[in-house]
Parts: sequence; structure tokens; C-alpha cells
Amino acid sequence: METLVTELKQRLMEVDDLRAAAALLNWDQSTYMPPGGAPARGRQMATLYRLAHERFTDPAVGRILDALEPQLAALDNADDTVALVRLTRRSYARDTKVPPAFVSAAESHLAEIFDVWTRARPADDFAAVQPLLEKTLDLSREYTSFFQDYAEPIDALIEESDYGMTAETVGTLFAELRQALVPLVSDIVERPVIDDSCLYGHFPAAAQREFGEAVIKEFGYDFGRGRQDETHHPFMTKFSQGDIRITTHTREENLVDGIFSTFHEAGHALYEQGIDPRYEGTLLAEGTSNGVHESQSRLWENLIGRSYDFWTHYYPKLQASFPEQLRPVPLETFYRAINKVQPSLIRTAADEVTYNLHVMLRFDLERALLNGNLAVRDLPEAWHERMRSDLGVTPPDNKDGVMQDVHWFIGFIGGAFQGYTLGNIMSGQIVEAAKQAIPQLNEQIRVGDFAPVHTWLREQIYQYGSKFTAAEIIERATGAPLSIGPYMTYLRTKYSAIYNL
Amino acid sequence: METLVTELKQRLMEVDDLRAAAALLNWDQSTYMPPGGAPARGRQMATLYRLAHERFTDPAVGRILDALEPQLAALDNADDTVALVRLTRRSYARDTKVPPAFVSAAESHLAEIFDVWTRARPADDFAAVQPLLEKTLDLSREYTSFFQDYAEPIDALIEESDYGMTAETVGTLFAELRQALVPLVSDIVERPVIDDSCLYGHFPAAAQREFGEAVIKEFGYDFGRGRQDETHHPFMTKFSQGDIRITTHTREENLVDGIFSTFHEAGHALYEQGIDPRYEGTLLAEGTSNGVHESQSRLWENLIGRSYDFWTHYYPKLQASFPEQLRPVPLETFYRAINKVQPSLIRTAADEVTYNLHVMLRFDLERALLNGNLAVRDLPEAWHERMRSDLGVTPPDNKDGVMQDVHWFIGFIGGAFQGYTLGNIMSGQIVEAAKQAIPQLNEQIRVGDFAPVHTWLREQIYQYGSKFTAAEIIERATGAPLSIGPYMTYLRTKYSAIYNL
Repeated sequence: METLVTELKQRLMEVDDLRAAAALLNWDQSTYMPPGGAPARGRQMATLYRLAHERFTDPAVGRILDALEPQLAALDNADDTVALVRLTRRSYARDTKVPPAFVSAAESHLAEIFDVWTRARPADDFAAVQPLLEKTLDLSREYTSFFQDYAEPIDALIEESDYGMTAETVGTLFAELRQALVPLVSDIVERPVIDDSCLYGHFPAAAQREFGEAVIKEFGYDFGRGRQDETHHPFMTKFSQGDIRITTHTREENLVDGIFSTFHEAGHALYEQGIDPRYEGTLLAEGTSNGVHESQSRLWENLIGRSYDFWTHYYPKLQASFPEQLRPVPLETFYRAINKVQPSLIRTAADEVTYNLHVMLRFDLERALLNGNLAVRDLPEAWHERMRSDLGVTPPDNKDGVMQDVHWFIGFIGGAFQGYTLGNIMSGQIVEAAKQAIPQLNEQIRVGDFAPVHTWLREQIYQYGSKFTAAEIIERATGAPLSIGPYMTYLRTKYSAIYNL
Repeated sequence: METLVTELKQRLMEVDDLRAAAALLNWDQSTYMPPGGAPARGRQMATLYRLAHERFTDPAVGRILDALEPQLAALDNADDTVALVRLTRRSYARDTKVPPAFVSAAESHLAEIFDVWTRARPADDFAAVQPLLEKTLDLSREYTSFFQDYAEPIDALIEESDYGMTAETVGTLFAELRQALVPLVSDIVERPVIDDSCLYGHFPAAAQREFGEAVIKEFGYDFGRGRQDETHHPFMTKFSQGDIRITTHTREENLVDGIFSTFHEAGHALYEQGIDPRYEGTLLAEGTSNGVHESQSRLWENLIGRSYDFWTHYYPKLQASFPEQLRPVPLETFYRAINKVQPSLIRTAADEVTYNLHVMLRFDLERALLNGNLAVRDLPEAWHERMRSDLGVTPPDNKDGVMQDVHWFIGFIGGAFQGYTLGNIMSGQIVEAAKQAIPQLNEQIRVGDFAPVHTWLREQIYQYGSKFTAAEIIERATGAPLSIGPYMTYLRTKYSAIYNL
């Protein structure tokens, strides 16, 4: 058995080396690559991913998994090897079920629709993408047909990003959340609009980055095993357990985009940096689901990074970085500005409260598309209607409506959105549990001491990588299954105070 | 035939994608990788090189080459396809002759000696590396034994870096050059030592880089298909025809290291950027030999970059970049300072005249080692003796003697040095031919107009990549076989003026 496990790990390590190389090529493309590098770069990444796929789906991997199977019965279900084999088998089964011809056809279609979308979106030309989006929908349904035993097509896609969840479980949670959020938003919009003009002006990029990096270093992000660079769209990427990088997008005309993006990506990176290094090179060495990953980015960005306790400690430092702009601005004013709630058109620019309504809208629409209950040609109108009913705003066009997110124009329809809101729900429940375990948590945050909460998160969540499912992680860390209760309590308490509800 | 060529190119493209990815991993390791990334990075590069080797030595490649062979007779010898097949066959024959077990044994030995050397060199501990170097010598000889029909073992290694040359042809050229150089150096050291103190002081790095980049842009280096970053050891690297990068090492305490290193690496990059883009992804898409490559780095660095004509145009600009330090320094003083000749211990820091004596010493010693005429234990003394006879200096230790260069401690002994001096010799002959073709060349350089010489070099040399051998390139570009005449004329004319010989 020892020998088989070693051989499996060697094969996985090779696959991981290829994927890590592709990830570095992608990072370089977004950070430092000169424009002339673009044509070859796409081909090089495709070659690496293709070889990684070939190596991973090698029948020899299947034989090793088969040979290991009967030997696992003797082991505890929580044993690392059991988890490794279970996870590898799941991924192997999935990857070997998709015909290579389908993969290349889908890839070339997705390259085409992405290319068309980049021009059609600024031109607000939904007609240009509609037939292509119809084909994406067909391909998405065909893709899900390769797998068995799902109640709805979208379940196959949810499983890839949020294993253990289904359209039904997500749908139930989301319906509950929506019922609680819509009235909260209505209450807030009746109150006077918060003046957040203190966040706009001229804030030199270097000082913003210096501040953001000083904070995330105190969060526990290890710059000896990472770094931060500038990219158009911020992201976190990993090349090994010792090299987990983040990017940000600093805008000198406002103070918040860059800094909160730094906190957000650092949250993702803290999760990855905290994974047990013994998992390196295997499928265990990554966050267990989109939802749990997002719970950590949002936890550090919002539940900690937008809290009054946090800014009690950091606001004087921020004022020192931008004395001219912020000296006249009291902490209270700044705190209210960074927590301003206002229904708007764009998901990525939305505040903490309305954000989830954007996500749930997308989830419900893609579920309806995949189930055949909505046609692509009716998508813009369905989008507008839902924006009106949930957020009280009507997109003036499709550019900032159905065409705003890249997700449907670069991949299959389904599976990519629900994790954002699952993560928010989880973040509330996790912080509630952390506060029970660390009664002094608020006081610690008020003095910039994040070591206790970071340690707790690492021990409860990060170290396990993908060993436990999202549901298991939540149950272990919080003692209860996932529910919207703690998250809604967090939102209601915080925003009742801010808006005098 | 069309089909076979297409299949060959596809296979080579995949190999090239893997090598390009490895090259990017290496570039990143030297530029931006955090320290924690090191352990995995070595493994990742090794995986990529191993897969590239596996794919390249696939018997299917041999079968395609065999099938193409009889069809080439109908084609002109200067046809691109003929050149592609010839070059691929040569490389394939070499790579398939070396047993994989030997490759891994050699790799692990070389990793060990490199590791020991990094500590032994600062400690001046030759005894620590001696037994390992003996093993490297054994492995180097074993490596050459895999190939047939060489007069001397080193010929197999010379062929890899400077195809078409042998120990005998290199040895003959070098003996002639040494005979001419030693008396020139003797004459120079009898003249008063040049005062180069104007080059030392404090020169802010950003201004140095800005100046260097402005110059190489005017040389013709295309920043749309490249970039410059800082590394400990400067180098040029290529990820595709559209992405050819250089690095430099700027030192604020002196003005010359960084700037001339930028010119040097830009010379390498101009060669690669000038290769016909249709060769992308094949073995034709790289410089044809170490010697020809070095001829271009030295041509731009020295024959142009250290010429009086060049600085007539650029010195006022350099003064404007460093007004405080350089305003009191006349052009004549600066020009003499950057061309100061002084025998010294370290090859990489040597001036234009003595540099080649360092290289030829190494070439003769490694040739003697491989031929069994010199034992590793006698190497330090042989080194010291030759330094005394050729340069009139005696290294006080082995740290700045036989242990100074990384080459013998990271690879086989043999083949890595001769290209430096071959390149210098070529640079003289190439510039002489360029001046014949472009009678106004000096005047153009005096006004910073490099377009004519860049175009001539691209047409005569760069565009062909590896299609022609070094000897063919020299013959085509200059109308004569390689000889030391023009290079010695260049050195004698230049340094007679500077030193009043």
C-alpha cells in the first residue's frame, strides 16, 4: 500500500507541477508580460493544461486507485490517505468521463464567445452574444449529461465548485436569505443616504499599497511565501505551498477599491498558506470549496476589515498615510462611508448587504436556463425584472445588466456564482463561532492583534485543505450545519447601528 | 511531405512550449519569486525539462525524420525545411544517445557540487570541491563517450555550443590571438594607469536604468516584445518571438556595471528579436551558436557602446542624468575611464583587451583536463602559472582563481567558455564588414542613428536564427572565413590612441 500511495503522489505531483507552471504563466500574463507575448502565451498555457489532463487521466492512475480501494477499509475515515484517494477518485472519475473531443470543441467555442463579449459589452450589443450564449447553454447541458444521478443539470456544475451542495440545498438557503435581505434593503434605502465623499480625491498608489500590505502582514499573510503585484482584475494564485501570491488594483482616485481588494485576496491567501504542507502536490492542497474560500476572503475583508473595532486601531494609521485628505475626517464618518449601502447595478461594486441579491439573481437565472425554464433571448428582460423587484433599480442597458460579469462568457453556465453568497453566509457563522472560542476577539481586533483569530481559523479550517467537505468543515468549526441565522444577525446588528433602524 | 513537416512542427512546438514555460519559471525565480517558492520551483523546472526531453526523444520524432530524409534531396540545401530537418536530426541524435540513467546521475551530482561550491568558494576551500570536480571530469568524459568520431573529447561539448568548431580550430585561432594580445597588454601596462574615479560615487538606480533603456530602445530593442528587470546576474531569456526579456544588475556605487550590462544583454536580445517569426517553436528559432550570440552582445556593448563616436552623442545625455557627478568631467576623461585596461583577477570584471586571456586560459585548461594531460589536483597551480605568464598577476587564493566561475560547478567541464572569445573575434570581423556596407556608419553612430546597422545585422545574421552555422553566417556576412585580423586591428587602433602606444 505504501508503494501505491507513493506512486500516486508522484503522479499527482507531476500533474501539479504542470498546473503550477500554467498558473505562473497566467500570473505573468496579468502582471509583467509585454504585449508581444500574448499569442504564444495562450498556446503555452493550453499545452500545459492539456499535458496535465493527459497525465491525470492516464489509466495507470485509475489502476492505482482501484488497487488502493480495498485496502482503505482498514483505515479511519478521517485518515489523510483515505481523504486523498477519495478526492482523487472523484476528480479522476469526472475528468475521464468527458470526451476529449468535447473538451476541445467547448474550449474553442468559449474562446470565441469571450472574444466577441469583450467587444459586444462596451457596445451594449446583446444580439451579438445571444446565439453564442445559446450554444454555451447547449454545451453546458451536454457537459452535465456526461455525469449521472443529478436531480438537476446545474448540480453537476455546483459539485465542482461547492462539493456537497445541490440546487435544492442552495436554493432553499438562498430563498430564506432573500426573504430576509429584501426588507432589510428596503428599510435602509428609506434612511438618509450616507455621504462617502471622504473616500474620493487623490490618494497616491504607493501609500495605499504600503498601508494595505502593512495590514495584511499583521493579519498573518507571510510575504516570505508570497507577494503582491498590480493587475487589472485582482486575484490570488498559488504555485506551491511556499509561493502564494495576490494582486490588487489600486486606483488613485479612491481609497477603498485597492485596500479592500488587498484584504479580500489576502483572505484567500491566508487560507492557502495555512494548509498542511504535507499535502503539497496533491489534490488535498487547496481550499475545499468556492464557498469556504470566499468565506475567508469576505471574513478578512468585511467582518474584520470593515468593522468599527478594526478601524479604531487602523484609522489613525490611515490618517497618517493620507494626512491632508483624512485629518479633517472623523473615524465615525469614515466608518459610515466604507459601509454605505446603496442598491446599484454592478455586483462587484455592491455593498455587503445588496451584494448577495446580485448573486442570487444570477444563480436563479442560470438554474432556470439549465432547466429549460428560461430562454437565452428572454434573459435580459428576466434580469431587469429581478433587479427591479429585489433592488429597486432598473439597468438602463444590458452592458451593465446581463453582460456585466465575465463568468457566462468564459465558461459554462452554472456553478460559478453560488459560492460568493455561500461564503458570505459561512463567514457570519464562522465569526460567531470564533467569538465563542475567543471571548476577547473584539478587543484583540481593536488593538490590531490578529494572531489568535488567525490561529483559530488555521486550526479549524485552513490546515485541512480539501480533506473535509465544506459541510464537514462548517460543522466541525461551528458545531452546527450551515444556516443563514448568524450572518443575518451580523448584518442586522451592524447596519441597524449605522442606519438607526 | 507537407503533412510530415506539419506534424514535426507540432511536436517541436509542444517541446518548445514546455521549455518556454521552464524558462519563465527560471526568470521568475531570479526576479520576483518569494524565498518560500524555492524548494518547489526546482522540482517544477525539472519536471518541465524532463517532459520536454521525453517528448523530443519520442521514437515518433525519429520516424518522421527518417520519412522526410529521402524527400529532402529534391530541395535546395538552403531551403528552410532542409535546415529544420538537419538541425532537428542533429539534436535528436544527440539527445537519444545519452542514457536517461546517466542524465539523472549527472544532474544529481551537479546539484551537489553546485551546492558545495556556493559555500566552498567564499571559504576559499578548494579541497572541498576537488573530489567532486574529479567526478564532474569523469562524468564529462563519460558524456563525450556517448558520441562517436571526435578527435578530442572536448569536441563533443564544443559542438553543442559552437557547432562546426573543434578543439583544433579553436585552439589554432586562440594561439594566434594570445600571441597578439600578450604583447599588447605588456605595452599597455607600461603606460600610466588611467584614472577612472569619475565612474565611482553615487548614481541613483532609477536614472541609470532610464538612461540604459533609452539607449537600447534606440539600438532597436522592442519593449513591446520585451522588458528589463533587475537580477543578481544579468541574462537574456526568451519565451516566444514576441517575448524576449533581459535583466540587469544596477549598482548605485558605480555607473558602468548596470549600463554596459544592459547594452550587452540587449545585444543578445536584438539577435533573438530579429529572427524570422516563421521559425517560432522550432529549433531554427534561436541564435546559431554561443560565439555568434556573444558577437552580438559584445558588438553592441563594446564596439558600439564603448566607442568615442557613441559617447559623442550620448555623453551629454548621461551628464544630464547625473549633472552633479558628471558636469565637471570632460568626455575625453569619461571615454578613457570606461576603456581603462588593467590586468586583474576576475574574468567578468575584465576590460576588453585582457578579457580574452581569461577565456583562453580556461579553454586550454579544460581541454588538458579532458585529454588527461592535467589532473584536477594540479588545476589551481596551473591556473596561477598561466595568470602570471599571460596577465602578470598572481591570484592570492583559489576563491578568485579557479573557483571564480560557476561554469565548472554547475555543468560539464568543456564547451562553455570558448564562445566568449569566438564572439569577440567575430564582432571585429562583423563590424569591419558592416562599415564596408555602410560607409557612413561612424557618422550615424555619432548622431545616435542605429537603424542602418541594426537593419544590416538583421538581414545578414539575425533573421536566419540557426538556419546557417556560425561559419556560414560569418562567411555570408563578411565574405571571409573567421580570422583574428579585424578584431586585432580594432583593438590595436582603439587602444593605441587611448594609451599613446
